Amino acid sequence: MKFARLGPIGAETPAVLSEGNYFDLSSLTADIDGDFLASSPSDAVARALEVGSLPQISNASELRIGAPITRPSAVICIGMNYAAHAAESGALPPSVPIIFLKTPNTVVGPNDSVEIPPNSTKTDWEVELGIVIGKRASYLDSPESSIDHIAGFVAANDISERDFQMELSGGQWSKGKCAPGFNPTGPWLVTPDDVDYQNLALKSWVNGEARQDSTTADQIFPVDFIVWHLSQFLALEPGDLVLTGTPEGVALSGRFPYLAAGDVCEIEIEGLGRQRQEFRAH
Amino acid sequence: MKFARLGPIGAETPAVLSEGNYFDLSSLTADIDGDFLASSPSDAVARALEVGSLPQISNASELRIGAPITRPSAVICIGMNYAAHAAESGALPPSVPIIFLKTPNTVVGPNDSVEIPPNSTKTDWEVELGIVIGKRASYLDSPESSIDHIAGFVAANDISERDFQMELSGGQWSKGKCAPGFNPTGPWLVTPDDVDYQNLALKSWVNGEARQDSTTADQIFPVDFIVWHLSQFLALEPGDLVLTGTPEGVALSGRFPYLAAGDVCEIEIEGLGRQRQEFRAH
Repeated sequence: MKFARLGPIGAETPAVLSEGNYFDLSSLTADIDGDFLASSPSDAVARALEVGSLPQISNASELRIGAPITRPSAVICIGMNYAAHAAESGALPPSVPIIFLKTPNTVVGPNDSVEIPPNSTKTDWEVELGIVIGKRASYLDSPESSIDHIAGFVAANDISERDFQMELSGGQWSKGKCAPGFNPTGPWLVTPDDVDYQNLALKSWVNGEARQDSTTADQIFPVDFIVWHLSQFLALEPGDLVLTGTPEGVALSGRFPYLAAGDVCEIEIEGLGRQRQEFRAH
Repeated sequence: MKFARLGPIGAETPAVLSEGNYFDLSSLTADIDGDFLASSPSDAVARALEVGSLPQISNASELRIGAPITRPSAVICIGMNYAAHAAESGALPPSVPIIFLKTPNTVVGPNDSVEIPPNSTKTDWEVELGIVIGKRASYLDSPESSIDHIAGFVAANDISERDFQMELSGGQWSKGKCAPGFNPTGPWLVTPDDVDYQNLALKSWVNGEARQDSTTADQIFPVDFIVWHLSQFLALEPGDLVLTGTPEGVALSGRFPYLAAGDVCEIEIEGLGRQRQEFRAH
């Protein structure tokens, strides 16, 4: 099942995508938020679709696509989770998951334009598989328990400013990860039964030229391990977003130029949809 | 003016402290949240106190004290902001503010007991001056603008697990900063007109023995600089919490043992009140 949020910023309508059409979920929930996801809503939504009680959003193609979740309580990111990306960043593959956070107000729609921050010379893209939490996760017993706490998966662009992240930061990465608009998310939240999440192609392009082209099968720490591991150090809340790291092919590698005003970045994850951001000056 | 939240976890009553008595703010706001703080509420609250329209909370001394703000959208921390603490941590004073984040669900009441995480051997205290944001701050022009974006100040204990933070983390500190209960906050939110925030004694004790004893005058990067600087890298939202770093005297120095179950930690900041946490096993 695919959930989405359509409409203007701050006034999105919750929706479900079924056979190519969007249907309005407002009669079941005010929004795609932690409470809704914690209610394991798939069955109720499927029934409502079956009996035809959800109105179709007939002008969906004209509407802005929002992030498929409301602002999370936290956005937790895994660094260096693909060996080839660690290498292009000048690092060894990590022996434990490296975690850092983005501020939750970075989450925006998948096609919203993104501002290059003032004084930025190294704005970079990172296509990432995102996990959306469905049920509070704290001190899980094993990675096998993780799936019970996952509401679904999203595509995300973990946009990063490399000087802010590594040169002006004293080495703590969050400073380069939190500029406004730095977390395009969506278009869809796809439930776990509808996606082979550990075996998805993930790709990015800049101005139509290929950049990243990898698969989530190459993750050093897989999804189930990540959720279990994080739960040993913090409590994940329903609606929280966990970004699972990016594969090789970013500008940090030195092989490609950083983003400039006017550039168009696209990312796509198999089954999770495609994003397109135009970058603009401050 | 001093704001507070009294009552059980998740059902706190917003209150104002006036001449030693707490008064119920429910008629003016449902909670001490970003919207309330963004409304510059001091004048309206002062008028309500004057005309006697706020009922006194007569059993205040029997009530739990909550954090004086609802869960923020973000908790942003400044690392190594006192030269002597940088030295005891084995680091040089930073040339730029080092920032890291705590998950917002770490924020708890000032006297709530705190669980030592499973497998922790290095749970540590950090008394810190906390800034609460009153007005969205993005790309402020100068440090002089910062004060217009500050709702007030709080005492906070930035509890840290040093192995999680530095040994099991690949060097990114958040892993040791986000365990449940790791951010006791309060008892009060004190508005800027009521506190000489750059000249406050801040102290901590463990089992009654002195640990930290310093002053916010010793901060490398002062409050106004911090808010301006952060606003160049991220957008601060009303209700957000910024922790401004801790002075020397923590267990990481090697001079004191780490916290164990049964230990009592107290912290106090001049004018912002005192906290007392009992630490317990998982």
